[in-house]
Amino acid sequence: MNTLTSLIRSRFDPHSLNKEAALMAAGNGYAGIRATHEEDYTLQTRGMFCAGFYHRAGAQETTELVNLPDVVGMQIVINGEVFSLLSGTVLSLRRELHFASGELKRELIWLAPDGQRFAIESRRFLSARQLPCFAQRLSITPLSGPASVSIVTGIDATQTNAGRQHLDEMQVRVFDRRWLQGIYATQDGAHQLAITSHCQVSRAENVRFSAKNRRLMQHISASVERDATFTLEKISWIAVWLDGTGQGSDISKDGLEHLQGCVAQGYDALLEASVAAREMYWRRSRVKVSSRNPEDQQALDFALYQLFAMTPCHDARSSIAAKGLTGEGYKGHVFWDTEVFLLPFFLFTRPGVARQLLRYRWYNLAGAQEKAARSGYDGALFPWESARSGHEETPPFAAINIRTGVRQRVASALAEHHLVADIAWAVVQYYQVTHDGDFMTREGLDLLRETALFWLSRTTEANGRLELHDVIGPDEYTEHVNNNAFTNHMAHYNVAQALHYLRTWQACDAQFEARAEDFLTRLWLPQPDEQGVMAQDDSFMAKPAIDLTRYKAEAGTQAILHDYSRAEVNEMQILKQADVVMLAYLQPGTFTAAQLAANLAFYEPRTIHDSSLSKAIHGIVAARCGDAESSYRFWREGAQIDLGPDPHSCDDGIHAAATGAIWLGAVQGFAGLYVSDGELRLTPCLPEHWQAIDFPLVWQGQSLHFHITHDTVAVSADSRLPLTLWGKPVMVTGQHIFYRRDFCSSEPGSATTEGRA
Amino acid sequence: MNTLTSLIRSRFDPHSLNKEAALMAAGNGYAGIRATHEEDYTLQTRGMFCAGFYHRAGAQETTELVNLPDVVGMQIVINGEVFSLLSGTVLSLRRELHFASGELKRELIWLAPDGQRFAIESRRFLSARQLPCFAQRLSITPLSGPASVSIVTGIDATQTNAGRQHLDEMQVRVFDRRWLQGIYATQDGAHQLAITSHCQVSRAENVRFSAKNRRLMQHISASVERDATFTLEKISWIAVWLDGTGQGSDISKDGLEHLQGCVAQGYDALLEASVAAREMYWRRSRVKVSSRNPEDQQALDFALYQLFAMTPCHDARSSIAAKGLTGEGYKGHVFWDTEVFLLPFFLFTRPGVARQLLRYRWYNLAGAQEKAARSGYDGALFPWESARSGHEETPPFAAINIRTGVRQRVASALAEHHLVADIAWAVVQYYQVTHDGDFMTREGLDLLRETALFWLSRTTEANGRLELHDVIGPDEYTEHVNNNAFTNHMAHYNVAQALHYLRTWQACDAQFEARAEDFLTRLWLPQPDEQGVMAQDDSFMAKPAIDLTRYKAEAGTQAILHDYSRAEVNEMQILKQADVVMLAYLQPGTFTAAQLAANLAFYEPRTIHDSSLSKAIHGIVAARCGDAESSYRFWREGAQIDLGPDPHSCDDGIHAAATGAIWLGAVQGFAGLYVSDGELRLTPCLPEHWQAIDFPLVWQGQSLHFHITHDTVAVSADSRLPLTLWGKPVMVTGQHIFYRRDFCSSEPGSATTEGRA
Repeated sequence: MNTLTSLIRSRFDPHSLNKEAALMAAGNGYAGIRATHEEDYTLQTRGMFCAGFYHRAGAQETTELVNLPDVVGMQIVINGEVFSLLSGTVLSLRRELHFASGELKRELIWLAPDGQRFAIESRRFLSARQLPCFAQRLSITPLSGPASVSIVTGIDATQTNAGRQHLDEMQVRVFDRRWLQGIYATQDGAHQLAITSHCQVSRAENVRFSAKNRRLMQHISASVERDATFTLEKISWIAVWLDGTGQGSDISKDGLEHLQGCVAQGYDALLEASVAAREMYWRRSRVKVSSRNPEDQQALDFALYQLFAMTPCHDARSSIAAKGLTGEGYKGHVFWDTEVFLLPFFLFTRPGVARQLLRYRWYNLAGAQEKAARSGYDGALFPWESARSGHEETPPFAAINIRTGVRQRVASALAEHHLVADIAWAVVQYYQVTHDGDFMTREGLDLLRETALFWLSRTTEANGRLELHDVIGPDEYTEHVNNNAFTNHMAHYNVAQALHYLRTWQACDAQFEARAEDFLTRLWLPQPDEQGVMAQDDSFMAKPAIDLTRYKAEAGTQAILHDYSRAEVNEMQILKQADVVMLAYLQPGTFTAAQLAANLAFYEPRTIHDSSLSKAIHGIVAARCGDAESSYRFWREGAQIDLGPDPHSCDDGIHAAATGAIWLGAVQGFAGLYVSDGELRLTPCLPEHWQAIDFPLVWQGQSLHFHITHDTVAVSADSRLPLTLWGKPVMVTGQHIFYRRDFCSSEPGSATTEGRA
Repeated sequence: MNTLTSLIRSRFDPHSLNKEAALMAAGNGYAGIRATHEEDYTLQTRGMFCAGFYHRAGAQETTELVNLPDVVGMQIVINGEVFSLLSGTVLSLRRELHFASGELKRELIWLAPDGQRFAIESRRFLSARQLPCFAQRLSITPLSGPASVSIVTGIDATQTNAGRQHLDEMQVRVFDRRWLQGIYATQDGAHQLAITSHCQVSRAENVRFSAKNRRLMQHISASVERDATFTLEKISWIAVWLDGTGQGSDISKDGLEHLQGCVAQGYDALLEASVAAREMYWRRSRVKVSSRNPEDQQALDFALYQLFAMTPCHDARSSIAAKGLTGEGYKGHVFWDTEVFLLPFFLFTRPGVARQLLRYRWYNLAGAQEKAARSGYDGALFPWESARSGHEETPPFAAINIRTGVRQRVASALAEHHLVADIAWAVVQYYQVTHDGDFMTREGLDLLRETALFWLSRTTEANGRLELHDVIGPDEYTEHVNNNAFTNHMAHYNVAQALHYLRTWQACDAQFEARAEDFLTRLWLPQPDEQGVMAQDDSFMAKPAIDLTRYKAEAGTQAILHDYSRAEVNEMQILKQADVVMLAYLQPGTFTAAQLAANLAFYEPRTIHDSSLSKAIHGIVAARCGDAESSYRFWREGAQIDLGPDPHSCDDGIHAAATGAIWLGAVQGFAGLYVSDGELRLTPCLPEHWQAIDFPLVWQGQSLHFHITHDTVAVSADSRLPLTLWGKPVMVTGQHIFYRRDFCSSEPGSATTEGRA
C-alpha cells in the first residue's frame, strides 16, 4: 500500500493510441504533453498545451487552448528502415507511467524487417521543479550486429488544433550549432511562446539543422556497434509569456539561459529534482486503500497524478480545463466542474491552490458582470465555458444542425445558471475549511455579493411567490424548465450565505439586505412529497418514463439521441444526471436519511449517466445512504470512464471532473467526509472490497491524518480538533482511535448523516 | 507509337509516397489533386490546389497557393482492420496513371492480417469537360468469405500548408441526407470555395454523418458476401469563387445543382466526356517518337499530361505555378519559367493559351510598375515571384540564416531583373508565331513599352557607355555582378523590339524613341573573345575555377553549398546554370556556329546543373551544335528530374519548367525548330536512339504536321508555308518530303543554324 502504482501497457494497439496519449500524458499544471510515441502514426494526435495559452483562430471560431509546437516527435531510422511499431515485429513492449516520478518509460525489443534485433528505450518527464523543463532520453542498442541510426527531431510548429493554426512563427534560430529555438506568438499578438531545445548524443557522425515549413529540425546520424548503446538526451525549455508579458523581455535569451542550466544538470539530475518536488505533493495528498481490487489503488494514484498535472497552481488567472492539459477536448475551457469536482481535493490537501482557483473567478468578475448585464440581470453571471478573458466562450454554433443548417445558440450558455451558485458554494466551502479571512475580504465577499445579486434579479413573480423560470439544471437532457430543484435550492443557499457573510463582515448595505431577505422568504423551494421525493422541476413529474436499461448499458455515449430527438428526450423522464441527487450531495441537510434514499431510488432508474459527472455523485449519495456496495459499484464505474477498456473514451483528453470524483468518492463517499455548519463530519461507510482507507487532510490550518477500517477511525491531529463522527461530536488531540461500535448500535452502514446531526 | 503511354507502379514504397503523389496527380488547369492513396500514411502529404486561389496566412507569412480541404481520403475498415498497404500482405499491386484519359487506377489484392483476401480497386479523375468535377470509384471484393466493410470519407478541412491554415469554415451542411457541402473562405475574405460531395454505394446497412473539427464525414458500413463487390462512387464539385465573385451568388445552390447534374451522369459517363475533351488536346499537341528507349515516349506523354494539368487556360488572371498544381513547393508562385520554358509549347500548339499566359502579365502591370517605382526605376519591374495580385511575393526571409538570425532579403527579388526582358521576349515570340495584331494592340505593346522603359532607367553611365550594374543572371550562384551577358543582351533585345513594334503600330513618342535609340547605341553588349567565348559578366573570367565533377554527379541537390558558403561560390567559376548558354538558346543569332560550340565547351564543365532549368537548355544548344548524342544525354537527364529514381525529387510538386523542357528538347532541340526574324526554321538533329519524331504545330494560324527521321523531314501544311530547313528557304504546300542529303553536304548533324541563315 505504500508504493505508488503505475500505469502499464504491454501491447501496442493503434486504436487506443490517443486514449493512451491522454491517460499517460505528462503534466505539471504549467504544461501538459500528450504521451504520443516518438514515431508518428496516422491516427496519433500530438499535443502540448500550456495553461492559459488560449487563442481564437478567426471570427467564426471559438477560443481554444492552443496545441503548441511539438518537441516529442522523433523520426528514428535504423539501417534505412523507418522505425514503427507497425513494421517488423515487436518482440516485447512495456510502456509505463510512474505516478510517483511522473516519468513515462517505454522499453521494447524490435525485430526489424531485415531480421536484425534492437533494444529501444525512451523516457521522458515534465519537471515538477522547473515547470518549463521537459526532458527526453532515447537509447538504441543493436542486438544482432552493427547498425546505422539516424534521428530527426526538433521543434515542429506545423501542429494545429484540428487544422486551426493559432501561431505566427516569429523567429527560428540555431545558436552555436547546438541550441534550437523557435519563438511564436498567437496571431492576435496576445501571448508569446519560446521553445528552446538541445540534443546531446552519445556519438554522432553527422549533425545538421534544417528550418523549413515551420519545422526546425536537427538531423543526427551515427554508426553503432552491436551491443553498444546510442543515446540521445533532448531537453526543452517551454516558456510562455501570457498577456503581453513577453514584450520588453528578451525571451530568446531567457530561454537559452534556462535551458543551458538544465542541460548542465542532465536528465538524471533533473529527474531527481522533479521527483523530490513531487514527493511533497504525494505526502500531502495521497489516499491509500487496502482493497481486494488492486485497480482501486491505481485509480486513486492515477487521479492524483492527473490532478497534479492539470492544475495551474502557478497562475491564478488560469484554471482547470475540462480535459486538463491532456487534449483538445472542450477546447480547454473551464466549466463548473472545477468548483464542484476538483476544488474540494485541493481544499482539503492544498487550500492555497483552492484559493487560486477561486481567485480565477474573482479576476473574471468583469466578464461575468458584463454577461449578466447583457442578459438583463444584475451581479455576475459567470460564463458557462470560460477561458482566460472571463467572457462567455461557449461555441455559439456547437449545436448547428448540419442537416437543416439552423444555427442554435448552445442552451447551456443561455440558461444553465446554476454555475453561479456553485461558485458561491465553493467560496463558502473554502471559508469553512480554511477560515481564511484575508480571502473573504479580498475576493470572497465580492464573489458572494455579485453571485447573490444575480439571483436577486433572476426571479419571476408567479403564483404569489418568487420563482426561477427557464433554467437548465445540471441534467442537460431537461432544458428550459421552471423551478429546477437544484437551481432554486442552490440559489437560495447562495443568497443566504452572501447575506450571512456580508453581515458578518459588515459589508452589507440596506438595500441588498432588504432584497435578500425578501428573496429568501419568498423564493419557492421545491419540497419532497409524502414519499420523500423532490420533483426535479415543475413539469418533471407529469412526464412519461421509459425503460432506460439499454441506454444505461451504454452510459456516456449519448446513445439515446440516436433514437430520440433532444426535444423528445426533454419531454420524458430521461436524465443525463440526476439534479436532486446532485443537490443531496452538495446540500446534505436538505434531506432526511429516508428522503435521501427515496430520491436515489426514484431518480437512479431514470438516469442514464450520460454525463461523466453522474456516477460518482450517485456513488457518494449511495454511501451516505449506507449502501456501500452500490456506492462501490458507482465509484468503480466512474473510475472506468478514463481507465476502462473503451479504446476511445478519452482520445481528446481525460475527464478532469471524473478524475476529481475518484478522490471525492473515496474521501467524501467511503470515508464519508463532509462539512456542514462549519464543522468537519465523518460518517465512514467502506465497501466490502476495502479493508482500510488512509489519507491526510488539512482542516483550518492543521494537518490531520485518517486511517479508517470497517470498525475503526484512527485520527491524528496536531491540536484540538472538534469532529462529528457518525453523527456524534468528538474531540481529538494527537492520535486517537474511535470504534464504530461506540457510535452505531445498528448495522454497519445504517448510520446516516443529517438525520442525526 | 500511337497509343498513349501510362505511368505504372507495381510496388508500394512509403519513401516515394509523396513523389508519386506529385507525378501521378490529377489536374485540369483549374484544379490539381495529388495522387495520395485513399488511406492515410504518416509521411503522405495530401494536396488539392485551385489555380489562383492564393492567400497569405499572416503578416510574417508569404502568399501561397492554398492547400484546400481534402476529398480523396477514405478510411477503409474491413472486418475491423484499418486497411493499409503497411499492414497484412499486399499480394499484388498495380497503380497506373493513364495519360490519355487522366484516370488513375489502383488495383491490389490484400491479404489482411486475419488471413482473408480482398480485391480492392480505386479509380479517380478530374474532368477535362467540367473542370470542377472530381470523380472517384472504390470497389472492394472479399475473396475468402463474407466481410464487413466500413468507409469514412467526406470533406476534410483540417488540411494546411505545412501547418498554416488559410480558410475559415463558413458553412457545413448535409442536404437531404445525401449531399455534403462545405463552404470556406480565405481568412482575408477574398476568395470563397464550395466543395459539394456525394457518395453512392452499391449497398449500405448504415449511413450517418458527422461534422466536427473541420471534418464533414459520411460513415458508411455494409456487409459484403464472398466474391460480391462493394462499390462506392464519390463525386465532388469543387467550385472556387475568386476575388469576391462569390458575393451575391448562391454558391451553395450552385454547387448542389452542378453536382446533381454530375451524379445523374455517373462515373463512367463523366469519364467518357472527359476523355473526349482530352482527345482534342492530344491530337493537337502529342509528340510521337520512335526510340530504342521506350521511356522517351513516356517522358513526352508525361510532360504533355502535366502541361495540360498545370495550365489554367480558363482564367487569364492565373498563370502556371513552378510546381504546377501538384504540391506546395515554391508556394505556388509563378516565375520566368512560365514565359521561357512553358509558353513555347502552347505557342506552337494552342496559341490562345499562350496569349492567356501573356495577358496574366498584362493584368499585373500595375504591380510591376509599383515595384519599379519603389525600386527607383521607370516602367515595369515584374515580381520575381508572382501570385494573383501581381505584387512581389518572393518570401522576404527565405534566406534567413538560422544560425546568425540575420534576415536577408532574397537577392532574386532585388536584382534578378532579366525576367523583364524574358517576358518581352515571349511577347515577340508570340507575335512572330501568331501575327496576332489584336494582342499586340491590346496587350503586347503595353508590355513591350513598359518593359523597355524599365531598362531605359536601369542603366549606369560607366566607361563612357551604358552598363547594367548589380544584377543577377539566371545563374543564381553568381550574384550582384555588372554587365551580365545574358541580361545585357536580353535588355538590348527588349528595347530594340519595343522600339520596332511601337514604331510599327505608330505608338511611339519622340521621347521614348530618343531614349531607346541612345540605349541601343550605347548599351555595352559583351562580345565573344578570340576563342569565341563570351564572358558571363565583367568579373567572371578573373575568378578561379575548381573541379566540379563531384557536385555535377549530385546535380540538383546544391551539394556545393555544404562545402562552400554562398559568398565563396560567388567568387569562383561555379555555375548553377550557364547564362551564356541560355542566351544562345533564346537568341541564336548572337553566336556563330563555332562560337556556340566554344561557349558550350567552356561553360559546361563550370556548370553544376543545380537548377532544374539547366540541362534541357544545354541539350538544345548541343543539338544546335550538331552534337546529337550530348543533346540526348542532357535531354534524358532532364527528363529524370521528375521521372528518375530519386524517391524525393518532387515530393512537393513536379518541376513544371523541366516538364516544359521535355517538349522543348524534342521539338526545339532534336527537331531543331526555332523562330528567327519572323521565320520558322528547322534544323533537325535526331539522336541515334531515335528513328523518328512526329508532331503537330500551329504556325500563323495554320496547322502543320512534321515527321522527321534522320534523313527526311515530312511536312504537311494547309496552304503556302515558307520554311527555312537546314538553313535553306523552302516553300511547302500540302504534303512534302525533304531529304537531308539535298541540304547538307557534310556529316549529319554538322549543319548549324545562324551561321548559314
